[in-house]
Amino acid sequence: MDRGFEHLTRRALAGGRGKPTSPLFRLSETLLSRAQHRPARLLATAAISKHEKTLDKNTTGLGSLPLTWPHKGWTEKMLLDVVPSHREPRTVGDRFAWRVTRICRWAMDFVTGMGPEQKVDSKHPTTAVAAHRPLTESQWLVRFIFLESIAGVPGMVAGALRHLHSIRRLKPDHGWIKTLLEESYNERMHLLTFLQMYQPSRLMRFMVFAAQGIFYNTFFISYLVSPKICHRFVGYLEEEAVHTYTRCLREMDAGSLLGWTKEDFKIPDIAVKYWNMQEGRRSMRDLILHIRADEASHRGVNHTLSNLDQSSDPNPFIVQDSNGGHTLNEKQVAVIKPRGLEREEIFKRRE
Amino acid sequence: MDRGFEHLTRRALAGGRGKPTSPLFRLSETLLSRAQHRPARLLATAAISKHEKTLDKNTTGLGSLPLTWPHKGWTEKMLLDVVPSHREPRTVGDRFAWRVTRICRWAMDFVTGMGPEQKVDSKHPTTAVAAHRPLTESQWLVRFIFLESIAGVPGMVAGALRHLHSIRRLKPDHGWIKTLLEESYNERMHLLTFLQMYQPSRLMRFMVFAAQGIFYNTFFISYLVSPKICHRFVGYLEEEAVHTYTRCLREMDAGSLLGWTKEDFKIPDIAVKYWNMQEGRRSMRDLILHIRADEASHRGVNHTLSNLDQSSDPNPFIVQDSNGGHTLNEKQVAVIKPRGLEREEIFKRRE
Ligand SMILES: [Fe+2]
Ligand SMILES: [Fe+2]
Ligand SMILES: [Fe+2]
Ligand SMILES: [Fe+2]
Repeated sequence: MDRGFEHLTRRALAGGRGKPTSPLFRLSETLLSRAQHRPARLLATAAISKHEKTLDKNTTGLGSLPLTWPHKGWTEKMLLDVVPSHREPRTVGDRFAWRVTRICRWAMDFVTGMGPEQKVDSKHPTTAVAAHRPLTESQWLVRFIFLESIAGVPGMVAGALRHLHSIRRLKPDHGWIKTLLEESYNERMHLLTFLQMYQPSRLMRFMVFAAQGIFYNTFFISYLVSPKICHRFVGYLEEEAVHTYTRCLREMDAGSLLGWTKEDFKIPDIAVKYWNMQEGRRSMRDLILHIRADEASHRGVNHTLSNLDQSSDPNPFIVQDSNGGHTLNEKQVAVIKPRGLEREEIFKRRE
Repeated sequence: MDRGFEHLTRRALAGGRGKPTSPLFRLSETLLSRAQHRPARLLATAAISKHEKTLDKNTTGLGSLPLTWPHKGWTEKMLLDVVPSHREPRTVGDRFAWRVTRICRWAMDFVTGMGPEQKVDSKHPTTAVAAHRPLTESQWLVRFIFLESIAGVPGMVAGALRHLHSIRRLKPDHGWIKTLLEESYNERMHLLTFLQMYQPSRLMRFMVFAAQGIFYNTFFISYLVSPKICHRFVGYLEEEAVHTYTRCLREMDAGSLLGWTKEDFKIPDIAVKYWNMQEGRRSMRDLILHIRADEASHRGVNHTLSNLDQSSDPNPFIVQDSNGGHTLNEKQVAVIKPRGLEREEIFKRRE
């Protein structure tokens, strides 16, 4: 394990007393050893076919099942135009959401097993993507799987709560539910894709399980209290996701993820099917570009939703104009409006 | 108020001591007075346009918002072929689910304000539809709105829990989520339709609100414990729904719901849009036929899901055969298999 990092974590976790015996530290150590020292867990191209056979029991018919929400697709230009971005907190609620996101980011860096030289400039955590040392393929996959497992929660909670609100208050939803549920489905597809490339350890499985227990309940209660702050929080989480995938792309391009850039690396079938990826455009780089664009759209959508009146504004992403097109669309906010649209902009547009 | 009924309720609610002062009794009395003595709350055809204007604030863009899941449509034959049905409990779990359904039915009859001669043969509660005295339009609408407000809960809870299960256990769902969420959306459309015809009282609103609080939490915990029993329970609830709408159709045909059968009665636009109802086939009778068929499909689907292995069997309703059709479909179970398909039948079919 990296010495500098070990030192830092010991200090941080054992409260500076130099006692590396805290259970949290031991947990981090085990996770790290999984992520950094056991590349065998990373399923090489050669191993994938065997693994797929084992998974088949778990994925009965996955290939033959129709997609719940087929992907709307990205243009090549959009895929490349996505950039990391940050919406400065403006209200007290924004600042609170941003604080909580910092904690989540810390936890994410922790499970990724990031050494100090693997970290980016902490002054610009969601936009700076340069670090002294790149992450390994295993570290990336651990990070992706954690991230996506958490990312699938908010859309489902928000969608379910708005549905329940509609039927208990006896009034219509304003079209938000679909976008929220679709987001959670999209995140689940990200997760299932990465799971075809990495077999999580038991400890990692347990941590994912426990993290959901905490996150689901906290987010559920929070959404009942302030959906506005919750959507801002998700906007910030998605800034993190765009950041993560952008950095990964950068390190891939710099040639440090050789396992993924080699000619014969095959991305999972489920990804080809879901994003309808064309022959010749099915590299790991293409896959990460697609996922990043999805995150960018969640980012713009959630920042926008947070700007709206939660109980009376219609979902601007599904309101159709007279030509059958949408007045606003998730694709545009991914690239053009990473900080979301203000309420006034939308109402001007709708007029 | 009906004398015989008043006597009975007093006995039942005040424990036979003839004291009509129990709060539960007073509640029932108030609900009854709302349902039976204030037909003004029932929005007559003439009043609808005015009411729609008021509701419009609540339904911003409802007309212009695209449907989350467009309805798959029913054939005329299917609409007419639906019959009330009952699956005899076979296992301990079935019997438990059936018991709980009896309690729900009692509560539903209670809020409907049913007098004793308005009740059907209690030996065949889900199949007998003849009663000595018909219900009024207001009674029906109170019943429908309560029923639909509750009916929208299970699909959303089950769908959300299967989604969360998938992302916390890091394994694919087997295509169940879509069917479950779509069911809850369908129920919400039923509810929104009836709300265009009836303005619930404050007391009724409160009771719907409170009922969800209890039902949501109970169902959530129960689904974590035994999804199998929960789907059976929903199957039974849907038997009740088919029963309710069948009886309503019968009384409409017998000429006792004149408000709905008169020439100029208009069903809400939302219904015309959702079920894509053709000109000349937009009577209240047509509407109830469509809703009943939906309930019949929920009935067959949930009885079937209850028969499956909850964690490994794929959703038989979305598995596509080689022609792109479905091996099983929700429409078939509505009419041909009201008791659901046994697991063995499905696996034979899939081979
Ligand atoms: Fe994601
Ligand atoms: Fe995301
Ligand atoms: Fe219904
Ligand atoms: Fe139903």
